[in-house]
Parts: sequence; C-alpha cells; structure tokens
Amino acid sequence: MTFMEKLSKAWKDGNSLVCVGLDPDKAKLPACVRSLPHPIFEFNRAIIDATCRDVCCYKPQAAYYAGQGVDDELLMTMEYLRKHHPEIPVILDAKRADIGNTTKMYAMEAFDRYGADAVTVNPYMGMDALKPFLDRADKGVVVLCRTSNAGAREIQELRLENGQFLYQRVAQLIAGPWNYNGNTMLVAGATFPQELGEIRRLVGRTPLLVPGIGAQGGDLEGVLKHGLTGDGTGLVINSSRGIIYASSGTDFAEAAAAACRELKNAINALR
Amino acid sequence: MTFMEKLSKAWKDGNSLVCVGLDPDKAKLPACVRSLPHPIFEFNRAIIDATCRDVCCYKPQAAYYAGQGVDDELLMTMEYLRKHHPEIPVILDAKRADIGNTTKMYAMEAFDRYGADAVTVNPYMGMDALKPFLDRADKGVVVLCRTSNAGAREIQELRLENGQFLYQRVAQLIAGPWNYNGNTMLVAGATFPQELGEIRRLVGRTPLLVPGIGAQGGDLEGVLKHGLTGDGTGLVINSSRGIIYASSGTDFAEAAAAACRELKNAINALR
Repeated sequence: MTFMEKLSKAWKDGNSLVCVGLDPDKAKLPACVRSLPHPIFEFNRAIIDATCRDVCCYKPQAAYYAGQGVDDELLMTMEYLRKHHPEIPVILDAKRADIGNTTKMYAMEAFDRYGADAVTVNPYMGMDALKPFLDRADKGVVVLCRTSNAGAREIQELRLENGQFLYQRVAQLIAGPWNYNGNTMLVAGATFPQELGEIRRLVGRTPLLVPGIGAQGGDLEGVLKHGLTGDGTGLVINSSRGIIYASSGTDFAEAAAAACRELKNAINALR
Repeated sequence: MTFMEKLSKAWKDGNSLVCVGLDPDKAKLPACVRSLPHPIFEFNRAIIDATCRDVCCYKPQAAYYAGQGVDDELLMTMEYLRKHHPEIPVILDAKRADIGNTTKMYAMEAFDRYGADAVTVNPYMGMDALKPFLDRADKGVVVLCRTSNAGAREIQELRLENGQFLYQRVAQLIAGPWNYNGNTMLVAGATFPQELGEIRRLVGRTPLLVPGIGAQGGDLEGVLKHGLTGDGTGLVINSSRGIIYASSGTDFAEAAAAACRELKNAINALR
C-alpha cells in the first residue's frame, strides 16, 4: 500500500484527522520513564499504545533524536510502529533537501534506514533537490509551504512580480509539477487559517499537514473551515506537546490518550 | 577563538581558500579501507592527514553519515579533527531549519553533539527558525542563498515585485538583519559566477561558501573574479569528489593531497 492509500484508510478507519508528534525532550519526560534503559523509546511506546485508536498518523521529529544523540531510540520507535501498528502511516519530520547525490542519502535515511512512510522536505533548492524523494511513488513527500512560526512571513510572504506570495507559488509547484507521482503533501501552519484557505484553493485535494494546533495556539475552527476537502478529510492535524506532555505523572499515557481523543472529537464536531 | 577568527587565520596560515568536503560513500571507498572496522572514519582520517596543510576548512556532509547509519563515524571524524587539527575550522553541512524548540535541538546536534565550528542552514522558514544557530556568536552560520544545482533557479530566481531575484533578497537578509552576531556566511554556487558577483555586491565582506567546483563543473576563474574580497579572501571553495576520490587505489590519500594542492595552487595563481 502506498503512503497515500495508507493515509486515506487511516482517516476512515480511525475516524480521525489527528497526527501525534513524537518530539520527546529528555528534560520533559515523566520521572517514571527517565530511569529506564531506553527512556525515549519507552515513552514513545506508551504514547503510541495509548493513542493508536484515535490517530491517522504519527510524526517523529528527527531533530529531537539527532540533538539528543538517540538515533537508536528513533530506530526502535520506527520498528515498533511498523511491527505493532503497520496500518498507521508515519511521517519522519526531517525537513531535508540537498543536491543530487547528497539528497539521495537523505532519502535513504528516511525511507530505508528508518523505514518512514513519508518525510518532510524543504523547497528552497528546487525540484531536483527533492527528486530522490519524489521518485519514490510508494512514499509521501511533505513539502514546506507556509510554516507555523511567526518569522515565516519574512521569506514565504515575499511578494512576487505577478502579485502572488512566494508560498502560493510554492504551493502550486508542490501540487503541480512536483507531484508527478501523486505523492506530495504540503505543510501549512494552523496559525494562519486564511492563508491555509488560499493554499487549499491552489492545490485542490492535495493533503495538508497542519502543525501549530495546541501549544502554538492555532485556530482549529478556522483550519477546518478553510482546509478540509469536500469529503471532510484532506488534513493531517498535528499536535505534539499538547498530547505527549498532557501529564508529567505516572498517568502520562492515559492523559495523552484523553488529550488525543479530545482533539479528535473537537475536530469531528466541526467537520 | 570564534569560527570567523579561526577561518581568517586558516586562510592566512594555510595560504588556501580550499575546503575539502568529507562526503564518503561506502560504495566508493578504496578497497584497502573497506575491510577496516570503521572504514569511513579511517578514510576520512587519511584524507585529513594528507590535505591538512593545504586547506582552510573541512566540511563533512551530514547526509552521508545519516543515510548510511554511521553517525558514530561522523563523531569519530569530528573528534579527530578537534584533537589533531584544532586550528582548522569545520563546517557541518546539514542544511537544517525548523521552528523554535525543534531548531534548538538541531543547534545542539551541530554544535554540542558533533562540536562543529559552523553549520549550513536553510533560509525558507525565516530568521526565527535560525535563531538558536545565529545566537551562538562563537559559531558560524552558513545560510543557503544561491545553490549550485540546476533546479535551484525554480525558487531562488523567482522575481520579486521590486525586481530583485529571491536569492538577492535572501543575501541581504543573511548579511544584514540575520548577521546580528557577525557570524553568518552564504552558500553561493560556483556554477553561476556572475550571480556570485551580484551576491558579493550585496553582502560586502561576508564570506561565501562556494560548492560546485570540480565534479559539478564550476568555473574557477569566474568565481575568483566575482567572489573575492579586496584582501583576496572571502571565499571558502569546496571540492568533495574531485579530491577525496582522486584515486581508488592504495595511493588514495597521496592522490587526494595532490588534487587538493593543485586546486589550492590554481586558486592562488588567480587571486
């Protein structure tokens, strides 16, 4: 099954648009897992088992594993997901891009070393920098378009000579010429729901990965109003801190399950 | 000593603008190192010892280590450089960028886990996505501006409403507001020497990292004509494959030394 088929099925089977971001910071782990041999993996496993019936996707953030030197625990997490929850697609959030031979190595990292179903990438270097990702028709390629940080507008909202914002042109490329295998998605932050609507108009049914709900204060109602496709899907709405750190006590997994279900229900009440 | 001080000193002491890219592909290693316990590290070590008198910089490419699952050999390489060649600055080529908490983790990866003197980053997400890098006044932050791949123009040459190309606006940001600690550099590919000249006019004395010499076919004379600063420096000219794969025999290190010296001399004859 391709990533896109897996995602469509997960939207339906789980009746959920929620993606849980697995961004574990050692300093924020509950005391009860900190002393275990692989604390980050054990934390992820508990969160995964607690939330798996209410998600359409998981999204481990590569930076947390790279920065803390725990590539092995990312690998263990990916293997655990593949073995125990093979039906749930996994997006490795890595925001990669480089030139020819180098970017092939990044595609190997995401798809072969870690076995991700999809990966986030950066559009600044153009399509050829993303080709080893885009060529993998079975995998998903989630390209940054309009990110959720305040400073995003510095570059992404530069106005082009034809009157478009840069991010609008990037949206057209991602859903158009870069989508030759029908495997692209876009990152469009929840913090700018109206721009998300403009993106939706430009990209048709191409799915959007929406970060910025929860800790970053995105507007859920606006996101759904402007971002849904006609069949009430088309969105992968990510929450990380709001779910994984819902409690810092021994009940952290139950609290994560409750926070995840709450977000799922809040979304479903609006779509 | 800050990265910028280290680079200035290395330009003078080595009388060289050459940067050797450490992009080791297991499939291309000489047979004589392939059977060693840490073949990539042993390969790097031999290349480093053979070229260290003729370089101003080393640039390990993170993708090669991540894609081949040899983070430990990158770590060994970085430690070897720090211990045996502490005077030579090292740029980790990682092209990172992400939002707030996440990008802090990437700064930890480059500067704390691997101990790099500088790191390459991607401008698409704006300044706040780079702040944890830019805030480290002792470290260098090398921001993509005009990359050396053919498809770069798809985004980087989009024309803005004021008539500028996107990469020109990015150049101004990198050398201007983003340079609040005086620690930025730009990536400007050797494959477009005239554009490199336009960038030089926009950024004053801010150093440029120039990939694309050698295997990518960049024009050395054009690069020097358009890119040098008044004192005959300002450039870090990278060659990877042209140096590290100069021979696939047991003489690979001597051949790398010769190729490195040849590039250094070719540059020095033109500046």
